[in-house]
Amino acid sequence: MSIATALDALVPLLGERLARSKSDLDLHAGSESHFPPIAPDAVAYPLSLAEVQALVAICADHGCPMTGWGAGTSLEGHGLAVKGGLVVDFTRMNKVLEIRPADMDVTVQPGVTRQSLNEELRATGLFFPVDPGANATLGGMAMTRASGTTTVRYGSMRDNVLGMQVVLADGRIIRTGSRARKSAAGYDLTALLVGSEGTLGLVTELTLRLHGIPEATSAGICAFPDMHAAVTAVMETIQMGIPMARIEFVDAATARAFTDYSGMQMAEAPHLLVEFNGSPESVAQDAERFGEIVADHGASTFRWSAREEERRALWALRHNGYYAILASRKGARALVTDICVPISRLADAVEQTQADIAASLIPGPILGHVGDGNFHAVLLVDPDQPAEMAEAQRLSHRMAERALALGGTCTGEHGVGMGKLSHMRAEHGEGWDVMGQIKQTLDPRNLMNPGKLVP
Amino acid sequence: MSIATALDALVPLLGERLARSKSDLDLHAGSESHFPPIAPDAVAYPLSLAEVQALVAICADHGCPMTGWGAGTSLEGHGLAVKGGLVVDFTRMNKVLEIRPADMDVTVQPGVTRQSLNEELRATGLFFPVDPGANATLGGMAMTRASGTTTVRYGSMRDNVLGMQVVLADGRIIRTGSRARKSAAGYDLTALLVGSEGTLGLVTELTLRLHGIPEATSAGICAFPDMHAAVTAVMETIQMGIPMARIEFVDAATARAFTDYSGMQMAEAPHLLVEFNGSPESVAQDAERFGEIVADHGASTFRWSAREEERRALWALRHNGYYAILASRKGARALVTDICVPISRLADAVEQTQADIAASLIPGPILGHVGDGNFHAVLLVDPDQPAEMAEAQRLSHRMAERALALGGTCTGEHGVGMGKLSHMRAEHGEGWDVMGQIKQTLDPRNLMNPGKLVP
Repeated sequence: MSIATALDALVPLLGERLARSKSDLDLHAGSESHFPPIAPDAVAYPLSLAEVQALVAICADHGCPMTGWGAGTSLEGHGLAVKGGLVVDFTRMNKVLEIRPADMDVTVQPGVTRQSLNEELRATGLFFPVDPGANATLGGMAMTRASGTTTVRYGSMRDNVLGMQVVLADGRIIRTGSRARKSAAGYDLTALLVGSEGTLGLVTELTLRLHGIPEATSAGICAFPDMHAAVTAVMETIQMGIPMARIEFVDAATARAFTDYSGMQMAEAPHLLVEFNGSPESVAQDAERFGEIVADHGASTFRWSAREEERRALWALRHNGYYAILASRKGARALVTDICVPISRLADAVEQTQADIAASLIPGPILGHVGDGNFHAVLLVDPDQPAEMAEAQRLSHRMAERALALGGTCTGEHGVGMGKLSHMRAEHGEGWDVMGQIKQTLDPRNLMNPGKLVP
Repeated sequence: MSIATALDALVPLLGERLARSKSDLDLHAGSESHFPPIAPDAVAYPLSLAEVQALVAICADHGCPMTGWGAGTSLEGHGLAVKGGLVVDFTRMNKVLEIRPADMDVTVQPGVTRQSLNEELRATGLFFPVDPGANATLGGMAMTRASGTTTVRYGSMRDNVLGMQVVLADGRIIRTGSRARKSAAGYDLTALLVGSEGTLGLVTELTLRLHGIPEATSAGICAFPDMHAAVTAVMETIQMGIPMARIEFVDAATARAFTDYSGMQMAEAPHLLVEFNGSPESVAQDAERFGEIVADHGASTFRWSAREEERRALWALRHNGYYAILASRKGARALVTDICVPISRLADAVEQTQADIAASLIPGPILGHVGDGNFHAVLLVDPDQPAEMAEAQRLSHRMAERALALGGTCTGEHGVGMGKLSHMRAEHGEGWDVMGQIKQTLDPRNLMNPGKLVP
């Protein structure tokens, strides 16, 4: 009973879809963030529910850890097999199973990416709105409770997963939720599993809410004299009930990185990027009202457009933000922080973070989903200088403590993974033990993504 | 170690706030629905977290069941102490603790009712939108995952509880969630507890999302030639993205009951009642577009108004719907069904239900929150005729089976309580066992509202 015997037993089930080559292991050893590579013992590429159930049964028999894998875009090392064993790569379970336009929902396999889903949906007039930037898989997005630029309007994965099919650690298959828009029938297992990071089971199917593609969209950008003015403008916009589809903040350092990366000229100043969805009249009206608010706060002229190519250029800039910032320091790796605070504390949180970074050894441009109170400092470290990584860890730790002191959370959207475990006790107190009890009940031998999320 | 010794031990803690008089027991023995009275052994009226924690510790020591109580408006017998023991009445923990207008959130004790919260909020320009009709307590609404007329726009308790303070069965106090608008920090214990019906712990504090009172509201009503036309109009309105704040269906029998109860004249035909929130221009535009859609489906002229007194009269009618229907059969008790189905199956579900009721011994007017696919048949039985209750049970059972066959749920908003236990296996399969495992872990001696929700 060992990992080795489990892998031997998996060969008849998976054949060549049980990969043990160095290249396969290396591909599943890395992450987009600062964690050192950790290779699993093997990678499985299941094609069906039946195969997932069978591989879980074999792994359970032999005590072999199982860690799910989607597009590998996690920033907190969720997919790294820190206790060894099997990485279960879902990228070949990538079918859109059923689109139901009348119900505005869709059932997909976990390896479908958000962009490929939206391509398949194009003819229906519907779309799936959750947009974390990276082209992640929907299974991975559900398991990390992903959100992103559109959450201020459309919600996160918490709000857009109607139900799941999951294989539990003991091989049972459960279906959670239903296709009804709401239910009061017992514990909300869907919500328990969304954000569980693969520690309770492997998701094999998801049913997701869809939304109508808005008739019209307007988007624009403006610069502010300082960060405080930008954040105050966001707060006023929310309080006036102007419905933003996206509202993104970038600081002066990020604006400079964008300019250098894209060639688009941005002033080296804090900016807001904003988008409105609705009818042609309403998006024009929303943009005008927003323009008045930001002018009151000393913003540069608010340039907006309802033309698709201009909007696309703007959001391509934002979507490449992480890579633009990475490129701003040659050879750097990034530690990306992810705190989220009540909106009234956002200006304080950003200001204190900027002061911390300014007084530190390393650069750390800031950008974020300010409509939700969520922002990231992308701390850039030279991987050959251990002192820099220690400095980034110190800054990250101070940010998390600050978020908790302000009534917020250490991670708004990236998840716990390996990077936020040390903050869970401070954030949840005895609630973290309750999470551990639930884990212990459903996975008593700790085979599902061990080393993540729970005590 | 018994209920009797527990009550003796509670006297020094609670004094006169441990009530054992017949009138107190009788007040906590009944429900608004068809269940026969079940009196607890005593009623506790705690005033603070410390008292709740102390009473839980005493009850745990003596093995005494604890059942939470709010306004007593549950339709599924949630508050009935079916295993005896203590009912914990939270109506004296009724303080609004802190309103934070800039963050659009509020922290309340569980005994605050939704109407009293909205009264306290009036000066802020904010409101709490979840509206189940009855003036329930917010603790009760959270624990039953309540929703109602405004859910199509503002969501249910699932979407509007940011966090809770809960005393668990072993006396631990946990705080779930945070005041951040989103978080990816571990299992979503808030979502697990919302809808847990007091089976995992007693809630002592809630933090809730607030929403801006809309600048303008328009509301209206129209009659349809048949139910199918009304439901099709709702589906089209959703698909066109017209943002309804409320959309309610009443069938011909309900329309007649409304007329008899209120004196307001309604044609004896299916009706839709609708409301839009927004700017003065947008609510007028929404009402006009809705008027065009319903006209295409043969509706009577859509009469709408943005005047507050007319809107209030309309919604008072809807809010009194249950009592109007009860009054339509003298001396009757009601068994209220609560299925919710995917919107594309709503017309089928209502039609088949109407046919079932028409072929039965008893009347059952239908009304519902059609924007969510949720509707109720109010089955009216003579309490002195056991055959009628058996008939109502049979109809209710068939409705629940129909909902599951159509991809829906046996309860959209009323909860499991005592009435829906028999459908949980069919709805959740082995997922129901998972709920049982979670319960067993957090309340191994089954002291928290025993006899409800789990196997």
